[in-house]
Amino acid sequence: MAETALTTEQIIEAAEDVLRRFGPAKATVVDVARALGVSHGTVYRHFPSKAALRAAVTRRWLDRAHAALPAIATGSQSPDRRLRLWLEALYGAKKRKALDDPELFATYSVLAAESGSVLDEHLTTLESQLAVIIAEGQDDGIFARDGDPLTLAQIVFQATARFHDPVYAPLWSAPAADRDFAALVGLVLRGLAAR
Amino acid sequence: MAETALTTEQIIEAAEDVLRRFGPAKATVVDVARALGVSHGTVYRHFPSKAALRAAVTRRWLDRAHAALPAIATGSQSPDRRLRLWLEALYGAKKRKALDDPELFATYSVLAAESGSVLDEHLTTLESQLAVIIAEGQDDGIFARDGDPLTLAQIVFQATARFHDPVYAPLWSAPAADRDFAALVGLVLRGLAAR
Repeated sequence: MAETALTTEQIIEAAEDVLRRFGPAKATVVDVARALGVSHGTVYRHFPSKAALRAAVTRRWLDRAHAALPAIATGSQSPDRRLRLWLEALYGAKKRKALDDPELFATYSVLAAESGSVLDEHLTTLESQLAVIIAEGQDDGIFARDGDPLTLAQIVFQATARFHDPVYAPLWSAPAADRDFAALVGLVLRGLAAR
Repeated sequence: MAETALTTEQIIEAAEDVLRRFGPAKATVVDVARALGVSHGTVYRHFPSKAALRAAVTRRWLDRAHAALPAIATGSQSPDRRLRLWLEALYGAKKRKALDDPELFATYSVLAAESGSVLDEHLTTLESQLAVIIAEGQDDGIFARDGDPLTLAQIVFQATARFHDPVYAPLWSAPAADRDFAALVGLVLRGLAAR
């Protein structure tokens, strides 16, 4: 591949492919350069370190995995309905990925845990989406008005960790998982509701 | 030590001490026998396998760690107050152990995960205690009556996982952890409340 034509996006794609094939423990920048037919120096001109490249792969994966969420957060349904749909979409996306390809899901869970700041940024984005829904529910009088929307969003996110934190992925295929998820969302919605 | 005087309890204590000193990866039944001055055959007369001995150590640790909980569950305070106290006692006990001696806490977390049935039994006991509180709250009209107490107990347990599941132990020393815990318990109590 002509080095002049190489884009950042192409490097991220190649790195993603290398991580899939070799796993996070073995994949190297040299593997990525080899896959692209360039020197590792060329890769380093786009990414200052292996960690920076892996962080970019992680960011892209997380954004893509949860692409449907922003539209749900700002949708036209009632805030309580939207909150449920948003949590269902998050759990659904994670569950599908974890069950369809457990190995790849584990790879990305390792990458996400490794790129702490990318993960923090992603979680902040998700919590902000939840906060938008909660703030609108408070404005509409559907949700109780006592409580800062962002703090409540963080609490809702923590309360539902069992259905989005990758450490619990092995439990998502349990027969009762979906029933438990629905009951937990019900409890959370009643907890937020205006009295 | 005279072999005739050796009790099951003494073997569990010695095993606990060996696990503390050598860690779960290295501790063996021979180490336990050596600490007691007996042959490993003597230990095997009390416990059919190394796994059975480790399960007994884990059971004792879990029971001791949460010794205060049953009395809270059946106490004389109002069910909503009791639910809060019970969750606080669970989080408090885990947090103290995790922060005071992270290495020992990690050892026991490994043992608990390894002894799946002991852990399941322990979690069932904890959920039953929660269910007692919730059932009384329903009888008193403090909690909404729609919902089976044991199912609700499981949901409450799942909703508060961030403050009792050992995988989250590193987060319990964060400045906002106690504030988040209080807010989460508030959300759960509002979710259970009669409307």
